Amino acid sequence: MTKKLTPSHHFEVALGAAESDPVLDKKAAKEQIADLRVTLLKAQYALLKQAHQSVLIVIAGLDGVGKGGCINILNEWMDPRHIITLAYGPPGPELQGVPPLWRYWRHLPAKGSTGVVFGSWYRDLFEELAQKTPDEGRVRALAQEVREFESVLTHNGVQVVKLWFHMSKKGQEERVDALLANPDTSWQVNPLDLEVRKKFDRARAIGALAMTLTHDKYSPWVVIPSADDNTRHICTGQAVLSTLRRHPRPPVIPSLVADDTPFLPEGAVLTNPDAIANNGRVLSLDAIDYTAKLKKGDYEPLLTQLQARLARLVRDPRFANFPLILVFEGQDAAGKGGTIRRITHAIDARQYRAIPIAAPTDEELARPYLWRFWRKLPPKGRVGIFDRSWYGRVLVERVEGFATEAEWSRAYTEINQFEHQLVDHGAIVLKFWLAITKDEQLERFEARKRSPFKNFKITDEDWRNRKRWDDYVQAANDLFRETSTERCPWHLVSSNDKNHARIEVLRTVVEAMEKGLARYKKDNRAH
Amino acid sequence: MTKKLTPSHHFEVALGAAESDPVLDKKAAKEQIADLRVTLLKAQYALLKQAHQSVLIVIAGLDGVGKGGCINILNEWMDPRHIITLAYGPPGPELQGVPPLWRYWRHLPAKGSTGVVFGSWYRDLFEELAQKTPDEGRVRALAQEVREFESVLTHNGVQVVKLWFHMSKKGQEERVDALLANPDTSWQVNPLDLEVRKKFDRARAIGALAMTLTHDKYSPWVVIPSADDNTRHICTGQAVLSTLRRHPRPPVIPSLVADDTPFLPEGAVLTNPDAIANNGRVLSLDAIDYTAKLKKGDYEPLLTQLQARLARLVRDPRFANFPLILVFEGQDAAGKGGTIRRITHAIDARQYRAIPIAAPTDEELARPYLWRFWRKLPPKGRVGIFDRSWYGRVLVERVEGFATEAEWSRAYTEINQFEHQLVDHGAIVLKFWLAITKDEQLERFEARKRSPFKNFKITDEDWRNRKRWDDYVQAANDLFRETSTERCPWHLVSSNDKNHARIEVLRTVVEAMEKGLARYKKDNRAH
Repeated sequence: MTKKLTPSHHFEVALGAAESDPVLDKKAAKEQIADLRVTLLKAQYALLKQAHQSVLIVIAGLDGVGKGGCINILNEWMDPRHIITLAYGPPGPELQGVPPLWRYWRHLPAKGSTGVVFGSWYRDLFEELAQKTPDEGRVRALAQEVREFESVLTHNGVQVVKLWFHMSKKGQEERVDALLANPDTSWQVNPLDLEVRKKFDRARAIGALAMTLTHDKYSPWVVIPSADDNTRHICTGQAVLSTLRRHPRPPVIPSLVADDTPFLPEGAVLTNPDAIANNGRVLSLDAIDYTAKLKKGDYEPLLTQLQARLARLVRDPRFANFPLILVFEGQDAAGKGGTIRRITHAIDARQYRAIPIAAPTDEELARPYLWRFWRKLPPKGRVGIFDRSWYGRVLVERVEGFATEAEWSRAYTEINQFEHQLVDHGAIVLKFWLAITKDEQLERFEARKRSPFKNFKITDEDWRNRKRWDDYVQAANDLFRETSTERCPWHLVSSNDKNHARIEVLRTVVEAMEKGLARYKKDNRAH
Repeated sequence: MTKKLTPSHHFEVALGAAESDPVLDKKAAKEQIADLRVTLLKAQYALLKQAHQSVLIVIAGLDGVGKGGCINILNEWMDPRHIITLAYGPPGPELQGVPPLWRYWRHLPAKGSTGVVFGSWYRDLFEELAQKTPDEGRVRALAQEVREFESVLTHNGVQVVKLWFHMSKKGQEERVDALLANPDTSWQVNPLDLEVRKKFDRARAIGALAMTLTHDKYSPWVVIPSADDNTRHICTGQAVLSTLRRHPRPPVIPSLVADDTPFLPEGAVLTNPDAIANNGRVLSLDAIDYTAKLKKGDYEPLLTQLQARLARLVRDPRFANFPLILVFEGQDAAGKGGTIRRITHAIDARQYRAIPIAAPTDEELARPYLWRFWRKLPPKGRVGIFDRSWYGRVLVERVEGFATEAEWSRAYTEINQFEHQLVDHGAIVLKFWLAITKDEQLERFEARKRSPFKNFKITDEDWRNRKRWDDYVQAANDLFRETSTERCPWHLVSSNDKNHARIEVLRTVVEAMEKGLARYKKDNRAH
């Protein structure tokens, strides 16, 4: 990361070429377009038929050079039923307390579809680069965020291409003037464009740097010469075509924390500076003290006190600033449900949502696996309680072989990034593993089988999982090592004594909420 | 509708019984609960297995009598993975411009699941009844809205039960005092409850009237005696049980407009006062002038002018007050896509969303058919363009037999109610049928087949549909008669000449937007 912030030769050349304002011969263009349309349609239908990938086209570039029109061209040339326009304005109040990427995640197109993105996740990076003296550290951090997001996408079935519409300064001025001259076309000129065209040089510099910092083989930037309509349309169509046809990113099994290789070899460096800091503790199911027990008579008063504290904390006006996200994992019959009910008892029904994670729906299967968790994130001032979670990727999906080794081993990094985005934007994320011994589980299974109103809790699947006890222990210990980070540590709680576990969890939640609220002034504003 | 607003004898008796504060013997209660839990679980699993219905439990009643706690009991007694809590506070700014029912629609549980609703669609009715002198007309209108909503639900696979938690005035006071006496339980008393308990008599009267006005065999009110925990829990469980076990509402084929029978025989009267007003015109595909044609040379300048007008209208700050909803239906190859592109050309990509209606996803199939349109409604200041729509219910689903006669004939009323809710809350709804003749369609099909970049538009399905031309004409003429209402009339546009159709549609949109904006003052506030 010692490279200076200078644009690469590649993009200097590409921008220069676009500034020559190339014009296509009309007749030649017509023929090319006829061919291109047929090929585009075929490629779109192949994508749809295979339904193993989706495509995202990011629109950027100079203003007033015909970016908006490319939507109409793509809708005319391709089957518009499988193209969605995703256009974002500046972030509104509904985005406070959630990571900025939330809105892009939420609208990811289903496999087989193509999304065209205006006002993309480059917004912050472009804005920082537009400063008189951009903060180099912030620029690099924002570029890194973009790369991480595009890496999760391209590794999980979303093909990305980014288009920079460009032309000469003189050409841009003439184009805007021509539109303005006619009252029936002047509306096509955004008032902001008039500002921006004075800033051609700055916009060019922003583009060149942003492209240099975020170009990747699997999410490339393409400069679109935009002076001539036909040229612009054809270049856009060709860029879309090659993205529709791109092969899925080949699976690469990342080296994990044990050695120092970055997780993702190509381009994006994804090591988290604070990954895996356990305060010197070894997090492992084997290292837990399963004899921990609450003294008889202590439970009820402790529970009542902790619930009363929690009740006051979630009703504190400062809680309006951030969400509380609780993740529960653990062996079957470890007591997740009972523990969750002890927490929700203290919270108004309007303030929390318990989110049991079952099999994904077809809308969820058609998108990267993290999508279904992004769509369920609580807003600020709310508690989201995940009964099982995104860790399924590295637990059941790993053990049962639903995810390939390349997929689940990459998921540690993807999950760390996901959680850090949550925490970076104010969320408190607490992850609990309720742990029981194999003997204790057997006793509980048997007791459940005997109980007429608990036997629904015990299924063949539980017995099957039990047979793979050691595999799950291995997967659990791996995930503690890979995803217990300083900002999102795991809390391993012995649950052989249920009361002990409930009190431990409640106490951890209460203490974290107290710390979380202390970040804000009493009058409900950030320090 | 001449009945005075007086509570029914039935609910007077039920409330009186609850006010005797019945207490169950502890031992008897324990046994009853053990039985009830088993039966509830079995019923829940039967619901889940059949997956043809969902359940909604509306929670209402006096404050401070343990309403909130019923969530924990249900989650403990039943399988909590198939219960969702749906708790609503007062409507926030995100609900401006959408019908109040939007948020209840959005969160409908999937078939097999049970939703527990706090802060339900009774909010406005309760509030009006809480006025010193409630407006009788408004009370009746709000009750009618509630009945219509519950009728759509119960006719479309959602079983509803509404619980009114009740006890004596003295009992309520003692309960609240006991909670307040202990600092660890005082948080359970909502500050508002202290207000409310002074108003026991008013709350009782509100409940008695609201229940009387909205009780129905298929969405009944049940009074829950709440003084004793066991009694409250058992009565709640029993009410839920009978709802889980309730048979689907039997299909009834409603009489249509031709005669005067209300659409739905039981209870709810659903005739729309303004249904079917066509200004004397006969709306029928046969009555259209298919020779309508735009003079050569007129198209381009008219198009440019209308697009410029539309561009200015959608950029008017007053548009921030309401959504614009455009519905496109018509025969295959009638030119919907091309017309839509002429409209979107004038609108910033951030401001509109084109919504092609394809086959429903599994999340959509698990809910009443209108759900997938509710979830796609545009917010205020945005244009939602439906390429095919909820009219599929009375077109393709009718013709192909995907919906039963009982279902599609009921849909006319349901659709009218849906559209009127949109219009009542400010939306402009414009419905276009692009009409072509059978010969013209054949020519277009043949031309599409020949064109290398249009042949994707012609599928076997199109030819199959063409064979059922007359059935579709019948279905179309029926839907014009049943759903062209004064507030949401149909616009039938000859599309044998595409340019004619495009200009007609654009002109209609522009004129409607001009009228729509004129409802608001220049400074962007409602008159």
